[in-house]
Amino acid sequence: MALEDPTSPAANALAQRYGVHAPARILWNDTIAHLLDHRTVRAFRPDALPEDLLPTLVAAAQSASTSSNLQLWSVVAIHDAAKRRELAALAGGQKHIEQAPLILLWVADLARAKALAAAEDKPSEGYDYLESYTLAVVDAALAAQNAVVAAESLGLGTVYIGGLRNHPEEVARVGGLPEGAAVVFGLVVGWPDADRPAAIKPRLPQSVVLHDEAYDLAGQAAPIVAYDETARAFQARTGQDPVGWRALVLARGASAAALKGRDRLKQALRTLGFALK
Amino acid sequence: MALEDPTSPAANALAQRYGVHAPARILWNDTIAHLLDHRTVRAFRPDALPEDLLPTLVAAAQSASTSSNLQLWSVVAIHDAAKRRELAALAGGQKHIEQAPLILLWVADLARAKALAAAEDKPSEGYDYLESYTLAVVDAALAAQNAVVAAESLGLGTVYIGGLRNHPEEVARVGGLPEGAAVVFGLVVGWPDADRPAAIKPRLPQSVVLHDEAYDLAGQAAPIVAYDETARAFQARTGQDPVGWRALVLARGASAAALKGRDRLKQALRTLGFALK
Repeated sequence: MALEDPTSPAANALAQRYGVHAPARILWNDTIAHLLDHRTVRAFRPDALPEDLLPTLVAAAQSASTSSNLQLWSVVAIHDAAKRRELAALAGGQKHIEQAPLILLWVADLARAKALAAAEDKPSEGYDYLESYTLAVVDAALAAQNAVVAAESLGLGTVYIGGLRNHPEEVARVGGLPEGAAVVFGLVVGWPDADRPAAIKPRLPQSVVLHDEAYDLAGQAAPIVAYDETARAFQARTGQDPVGWRALVLARGASAAALKGRDRLKQALRTLGFALK
Repeated sequence: MALEDPTSPAANALAQRYGVHAPARILWNDTIAHLLDHRTVRAFRPDALPEDLLPTLVAAAQSASTSSNLQLWSVVAIHDAAKRRELAALAGGQKHIEQAPLILLWVADLARAKALAAAEDKPSEGYDYLESYTLAVVDAALAAQNAVVAAESLGLGTVYIGGLRNHPEEVARVGGLPEGAAVVFGLVVGWPDADRPAAIKPRLPQSVVLHDEAYDLAGQAAPIVAYDETARAFQARTGQDPVGWRALVLARGASAAALKGRDRLKQALRTLGFALK
């Protein structure tokens, strides 16, 4: 492959995303430029959002694929400050949920399908399997990511809040969810605070995640060692403890306690009406 | 809200996505136009894909958010015709997997994390919970959706293949996956066949999926009845049996058998090394 001209926007984007382990060349247009420029924003201005933002983000979200058009997802828009404060606490004290004016709760939604079946006195046991949970989670994630791309194209910033899975029952209560529905994650939307700009986080070299014809585990070891250095440098530059990446992966897997309550997820989902057969 | 000028590109896009139940107005730019123009392509030309496409799609995918930067996903690119034929059969006879030159297998990947722990003789029990499966599925879906947006921006067409979950063990074998990895879905990528153009599928009215401050189940009944008419008209127009949308939702939930083998997903994932505690 030819090398990207190092002064090109593509080369600059690749350098930020991969450090020295960037692919030599990629295709380039404005949409791809937008996608590669993604950064997670955790510092927001409290300013109001544009009128018509919600129908715009939902139109983008609904334009994503959904398995067999079943549309097993919903989204609850929380503007209310008291509710945002409660969600910030439930997510482990994430202040940006309070600071930005909006958090979207993305819902794996079997409640709608089950209600349709109940209204016609029909069975709905197909929705009681792990498959239906998986399908709903995928549906919600595809939809949310389209909303992120749309929001960023408007200059807004976002951050996903997986920490809401620390307390699924309480979060469901805040969102007023019926039985058969659960929040998969939140998404904070707001205007980025230019005084506290977000950085582009380097990712694993492509050779670690992209496999040609068959998955290769052994070949990942060396590029992961290289990535650990990139991650350390990024952590140092952004004021974090420069522990590297492997240490984070090991810490998360170290014990059930490291999941901060999410080791209860199966039990919580059952309480919320997911049979997970 | 002001009404969108009915001759505007935005109004046209909304009419295709929602029929008569479109939001009155949305924000608009080229990226949003691209997102709303999405359609699932199932008729492909066999033509070769652009050089540098894979690093481009993977750079877009890796630019999506990933929970705590754990990057619990991988992607296996299958070009090989014999493997594509096998995958087409495993997915229930989906010919487009054979016709397009590429299918990407999006992998929920706990194998990498577990291998890192094993290499340092550290525990990895945190990855044995339903939470870690959920996180990996979300990671894979966010990444894949960014790849879809990038592919479509280049004029390519895509179709997600959830049918690969009908036979998780066999699909894992085709992709050469190690223990602790499973294909969540496939994604066929190719040049759309202009002689058999894909249509934009209408979705549920926004009032069904978007909830203001709290989820509303009862309020969905009337707009779903209206949507059933939109769905029926679309089905008739595209040569499908005009059964409407509710009938599809009820059919999927009718029984374990309606899941076409996916009622075995939990068992299959356990075989593949997901403890799902």
